[in-house]
Amino acid sequence: MKALKYKQIIDYIKEQITNGTWPVGSRLPSQRALASQFGVNRSTIVTALEELAADGLIEGRTGMGTIVVNNTWTLMRSEPPLNWNEQVGRGTHQASMPTVQAINQAESNEDLIQLSKGELSRDLFPLEEMRVVITKVGKNLEPFGYEEPKGNPQLREEIARYLSRKGINISSSSILVVSGALQALHLISIGLLDRGSTVFLENPSYVNSLSTFQSAGMKLQGIPIDQEGINPAKIEGIHQTKNSVLYCHPTFHNPTGALMGEKRRQELLNLAERAQIPIIEDDVYGDLWIDSPPPRPIKSLDKHGNVLYLGSLSKSLNPGLRIGWIVGPEAVIDRLADLKMQTDYGTSSISQRAAAEWLSSGLYEEHISAVRKELKVRRNAALQALDQHLSRYGEWQQPAGGFFVWVKMKQEISMADLYRKALARGVLINPGRIYSNQKSPHFRLSFANAQVEDIVKGIAVLESLIEDC
Amino acid sequence: MKALKYKQIIDYIKEQITNGTWPVGSRLPSQRALASQFGVNRSTIVTALEELAADGLIEGRTGMGTIVVNNTWTLMRSEPPLNWNEQVGRGTHQASMPTVQAINQAESNEDLIQLSKGELSRDLFPLEEMRVVITKVGKNLEPFGYEEPKGNPQLREEIARYLSRKGINISSSSILVVSGALQALHLISIGLLDRGSTVFLENPSYVNSLSTFQSAGMKLQGIPIDQEGINPAKIEGIHQTKNSVLYCHPTFHNPTGALMGEKRRQELLNLAERAQIPIIEDDVYGDLWIDSPPPRPIKSLDKHGNVLYLGSLSKSLNPGLRIGWIVGPEAVIDRLADLKMQTDYGTSSISQRAAAEWLSSGLYEEHISAVRKELKVRRNAALQALDQHLSRYGEWQQPAGGFFVWVKMKQEISMADLYRKALARGVLINPGRIYSNQKSPHFRLSFANAQVEDIVKGIAVLESLIEDC
Ligand SMILES: Cc1ncc(COP(=O)(O)O)c(C=O)c1O
Ligand SMILES: Cc1ncc(COP(=O)(O)O)c(C=O)c1O
Repeated sequence: MKALKYKQIIDYIKEQITNGTWPVGSRLPSQRALASQFGVNRSTIVTALEELAADGLIEGRTGMGTIVVNNTWTLMRSEPPLNWNEQVGRGTHQASMPTVQAINQAESNEDLIQLSKGELSRDLFPLEEMRVVITKVGKNLEPFGYEEPKGNPQLREEIARYLSRKGINISSSSILVVSGALQALHLISIGLLDRGSTVFLENPSYVNSLSTFQSAGMKLQGIPIDQEGINPAKIEGIHQTKNSVLYCHPTFHNPTGALMGEKRRQELLNLAERAQIPIIEDDVYGDLWIDSPPPRPIKSLDKHGNVLYLGSLSKSLNPGLRIGWIVGPEAVIDRLADLKMQTDYGTSSISQRAAAEWLSSGLYEEHISAVRKELKVRRNAALQALDQHLSRYGEWQQPAGGFFVWVKMKQEISMADLYRKALARGVLINPGRIYSNQKSPHFRLSFANAQVEDIVKGIAVLESLIEDC
Repeated sequence: MKALKYKQIIDYIKEQITNGTWPVGSRLPSQRALASQFGVNRSTIVTALEELAADGLIEGRTGMGTIVVNNTWTLMRSEPPLNWNEQVGRGTHQASMPTVQAINQAESNEDLIQLSKGELSRDLFPLEEMRVVITKVGKNLEPFGYEEPKGNPQLREEIARYLSRKGINISSSSILVVSGALQALHLISIGLLDRGSTVFLENPSYVNSLSTFQSAGMKLQGIPIDQEGINPAKIEGIHQTKNSVLYCHPTFHNPTGALMGEKRRQELLNLAERAQIPIIEDDVYGDLWIDSPPPRPIKSLDKHGNVLYLGSLSKSLNPGLRIGWIVGPEAVIDRLADLKMQTDYGTSSISQRAAAEWLSSGLYEEHISAVRKELKVRRNAALQALDQHLSRYGEWQQPAGGFFVWVKMKQEISMADLYRKALARGVLINPGRIYSNQKSPHFRLSFANAQVEDIVKGIAVLESLIEDC
């Protein structure tokens, strides 16, 4: 049995090397990873690797793990050819921060207590309704193909109707369906902004907004915020330089949970118009109020096409649908639709039909009222546990909606340490640093994803770690 | 009734202007478009526009149509604010060519004879099976959310199994699921290539590959092709300069239908390795052979990770699913997966599940055998009609698969003229120029989309137009 496995491992690694999946110069997975992949002891892996090293295919290098140094083909020739691996460091777009990549990975580890994920808990997944919706989409299906550039017309009608309830009155031709609000930011970056454009944005801000704008070459200019988000009075002086814009999420801000009041919304719009700086308003958490409905979006006050408005079903319903929208002046929407066609030729027809069905059937409204109640339970449990365990060490505001509590540590506690130690104890939190690319005494705690008892347990673990520091 | 409509039109236009959908400086839809939108005569539109002009809101300008010059708000202030409309000309990514945009639009006009669309005919849509698949996905649904960075694991397993039948033996961790092969090109452009990188590619080539590479700042270097595509012997001299790559679709090339033989595939791979130029092999038409199966993909010969391989369900099954894949060295796939997360956070969960079901159930294989038979009928009908109507004016090769016949006109016939006149007669063809950004005596004729009798009718119309020239 063991001998069989051992042979299998050697064959597998040889195959990966021979067919170029692991080209010369690349690093093998760790011994631990290979051991768990094949369900064997590390010693079996070590023996297999020794044999491959004896064949001249791989080499252990201190501090670098095991490197592919030859493949059966290069053994027969003088120099290894250049290959795609050489390209990995290139491209105009940057890689995500290593911490962000590590968190992305850890978020799919089901054994961890997820105080990190900005995603509704699995037990809030409306399984029965989603089955009904998709089965209905299946039953009623008519032939489909590439969709219209702006997206499925029926879905756009439904979105227009849904937005009119928020005071945004537009026709469906001012709506572009996108694969989530994140894609909206990507399209805006490559389609409307220049390399070198300044993006004013809340500091801290949504982590993928930072990477998306930066990857596309924009300069970020953070604006300090308070519990109401951006204070227009404090940024009276901003003005248009080279094609700058302002990106904000005034409703249940990520990561701080801040909610901007009605007065500030109007002031911010006025200021932006005076300063000639267009606004990107990201409203993906807007439906997720807990205590009372938030003020209407800034877009509902916009009389000049100054605001591009983003929404999504990811937070309130489900991110796997990948359905979001951009609303703005028609010429701008046309331009973005053309770019969307260039980058992926439209969003999944099936997802678009499922989304239209969610909205038109009224199931969406029913679902979010249920979600609001559940979020209230979880938020309250989180706040109570925070009070009980962390009030000596930190402070926070009560969020009126959304997914997050933004915890500020009072003492000089290394956030990097806390994050790492918590992870080792099975609790995933997000260090504040990733939301601003700078040192931060905060961490973000999501109460949307973990079960109540896990939220409480996780917060207790944090207390014990801080006490140990 | 007429008075009512007239008032309604004025209100509608005022609303669009007031809420910034049509900001100051933007152009109103044409009178004809408005008339058809409201189902009225153009004279009603003209009267409505006159009233709005009298209010100072709009102005007719010669050669530019009707322009918004004020809105109710700007009428009260001195200068109009800057708004998103000013941004339309910006962005690093270029707009599609006007002809391409016009064709995109005309392709959704159901009244035209579509000799243009690179998309299977509606009557080849496997409606029963698609309903079964989606209903099954609905019934068996388990909660889902954001998917793993590389895509749904089950779908990747199915793709790996499917590719092994083409001689590509890789594990599912070397596969990235993307929203169609076009997104693959976009991700490669922004993630692996530099602004200024040279992309060698067939001249002519897939129209969206041109815009995608160019938008991302790549230089295009066309390689002339014959009926077997690129001839490696003719490009012995190419060599790596600044991060250059070679993009090709050796199997049933778009737009020419060319098929590269086995020998050339190996030679091209050898040449690319010698020249140290990695290959992007686009195989979206590979399953659509008509006469006999094509040679195995270049990727199946690749021993050094020199080839990134692209596939898709768009052409063989349905483009609305938006399911494609990239296969390559793991480190490269990891890099592209990270970028995919940055740009849209993954492909629709429902589409991925539907695609997995199509592949695992065997329905996909059944479907494409049926499609092959149908394509044969349509291709033969197209070739026969071409022989009958156009043999005096043009020449072409018989394509052994895919969707297209590439017709070269013998005489000096203006392609732009032929395209325009054909459109006026209700027949949409694609002028060769859009596939190379240069003058071309060709047009592309798709036999995949229109009904046999329409294909024949369309070709007869072309004959009569050419005779008139
Ligand atoms: C503020 C904000 N905007 C956009 C997104 C992206 O959402 P989507 O899944 O719609 O792309 C997120 C997700 O975390 C977010 O927090
Ligand atoms: C050669 C080629 N590659 C890629 C594509 C894009 O296909 P998808 O729908 O998978 O993005 C097309 C579609 O026309 C094509 O012709």
